[in-house]
Amino acid sequence: MRILLDVMGGDLPPQELIRGGIAAARNQSIDIAFAGDARTIEATLAEAGERSGERFSIVPSTDVISMDDPPVRAIREKKGSSLVVGLAALHRGEVDGFVSPGNTGAVVVGSIFTLGRIAAIPRPGLLAVLPTLRGPNLLVVDVGANTDCSPSHLAAFALMGATYAREILRIEHPRVGLLNIGTEETKGNRITQEAFALLRTSALDFAGNVEPHHLLTDRPVDVVVCDGFIGNVFLKSIEGGISAVTSLLKRSIIQNAFAKVGALLLKRAFSDVRQVLSYERHGGAPLLGVNGTVVIAHGRSDAVAIESAVDVARRQVEARLVERFGRGMQGWARDGG
Amino acid sequence: MRILLDVMGGDLPPQELIRGGIAAARNQSIDIAFAGDARTIEATLAEAGERSGERFSIVPSTDVISMDDPPVRAIREKKGSSLVVGLAALHRGEVDGFVSPGNTGAVVVGSIFTLGRIAAIPRPGLLAVLPTLRGPNLLVVDVGANTDCSPSHLAAFALMGATYAREILRIEHPRVGLLNIGTEETKGNRITQEAFALLRTSALDFAGNVEPHHLLTDRPVDVVVCDGFIGNVFLKSIEGGISAVTSLLKRSIIQNAFAKVGALLLKRAFSDVRQVLSYERHGGAPLLGVNGTVVIAHGRSDAVAIESAVDVARRQVEARLVERFGRGMQGWARDGG
Repeated sequence: MRILLDVMGGDLPPQELIRGGIAAARNQSIDIAFAGDARTIEATLAEAGERSGERFSIVPSTDVISMDDPPVRAIREKKGSSLVVGLAALHRGEVDGFVSPGNTGAVVVGSIFTLGRIAAIPRPGLLAVLPTLRGPNLLVVDVGANTDCSPSHLAAFALMGATYAREILRIEHPRVGLLNIGTEETKGNRITQEAFALLRTSALDFAGNVEPHHLLTDRPVDVVVCDGFIGNVFLKSIEGGISAVTSLLKRSIIQNAFAKVGALLLKRAFSDVRQVLSYERHGGAPLLGVNGTVVIAHGRSDAVAIESAVDVARRQVEARLVERFGRGMQGWARDGG
Repeated sequence: MRILLDVMGGDLPPQELIRGGIAAARNQSIDIAFAGDARTIEATLAEAGERSGERFSIVPSTDVISMDDPPVRAIREKKGSSLVVGLAALHRGEVDGFVSPGNTGAVVVGSIFTLGRIAAIPRPGLLAVLPTLRGPNLLVVDVGANTDCSPSHLAAFALMGATYAREILRIEHPRVGLLNIGTEETKGNRITQEAFALLRTSALDFAGNVEPHHLLTDRPVDVVVCDGFIGNVFLKSIEGGISAVTSLLKRSIIQNAFAKVGALLLKRAFSDVRQVLSYERHGGAPLLGVNGTVVIAHGRSDAVAIESAVDVARRQVEARLVERFGRGMQGWARDGG
């Protein structure tokens, strides 16, 4: 198996990302293709005692899509970018999966343009896998691929999320919830009300509406479905709440000698918080529904986060997730999996 | 000045809410009208050494709208509810403002039915005033009155939010931000993109898009505008992030003797967190844009929270906010206030 890693468009320098790719190859027994500046890649490989060949190959690029580039124009105009040449290599079958910490919108648009959608899927969805206080793996889809969704898009996200939960995370009977601002069926906006009706008549194990404030503490379902705008607001607001508390505690501690001693003793507790809730730095978000395995890592990914994102791609390739989506989505849903 | 308090529809018993009203009358030098069960109100007044009369009047009700009642039907069918008879008293001019800790949707629908909208305002907006790490009073509107908004609704929320910031909170030149999932003008869904264009050409001090994750720590603007579904998801997700961190810390502390000592020493720091971030229990959310002063208190409001919500209503009445909205919205915007 060979996973391609786009090393140019992240917030950290390519060298850091390349080191993540080298570690992934060594620890996961896979080959890695690097899309990026060939000289930088060769030099970083040499530093690690490796060189390009079968295990570490290079897909040379001449351009970079930055975080601020408007997605559609960037994909059309920057044909030599690591993102575009990397996706082309995936499309040609030279690699089995694609991982990028770059511009999310550009990866989404590039994937749709280059790979196309899986037939039964109206829109791809970006999946976030969050840790909770009641265990890992709360799935949220879509967290930013689509900013304007119809009810049937949400139903497709639910099917893909449940399939991912079952095939990749081994959750036998995934329960699906609809992100909403109240639990009653009549709550929400037009889209969620119509999506509720669609989901209720599907063969999915639909638990109804779920509200944002207790998802991380109670984990009432396995898969949370929402449109990409809402999902992205949800993720960033959760992050905002967490950082408000931790910043406030830090400030109080600085102002108070007793609290400093307290903080020292609480060090382990704070480290638990980081362990459990720092979902940002770990893993990557699979883009479900395009015709190929694509994982979007966080822009601030370091080598450890990249290694973890490559692992997410590897597991999807191993489970033949794209094939499963293509073959059995509708059938599986009707079979009541 | 007389503020009416709906004492029946909250999560806590009427007695607790009545005590909040009595405290408000004493501390704010105003009269209070209680809408609710007359015998309960008389009895609770007597316990506090008061009785009904000029200062504490009673608007008797025979029914209660519960938190789960569907708003439109509840308003139509429960004519004798404290919520409906209270709003009617406001409409007849017998009281100057209305405060309820009840069903938010029912208060919104009831206010529109009974009081009507202010002429220039297409939709009322529910305003939340949040504490931040950089000071109090971050205004967010709409946080749940409207689940499907058009760009012009968002522009009206911006005007009302900025007016409230200036007239009630004495923020001379309020800066307005549009809640979005990226800072660039092209980010977001169709509604936010069109609202961006409207706000940019308005006479408001428009700071562009703001993202949820840094609002409480950086407070980049004074007023944040969004549709009610998004605003409600934002509030509840922030709450979810905060409760995830505090629950995790508590769990770590219970499992660890050293941490227990640490927690004792950090008590002050935790109390700061509660002070700054427990926006829920304090104040109330003004419903801006209806033809009367309406404040929705949190469902779990106790006497202290009710007193604070009455104060929010009192300040709006004093500032003649409804009149100001009616007279000067468009004019003020063009004057570049």
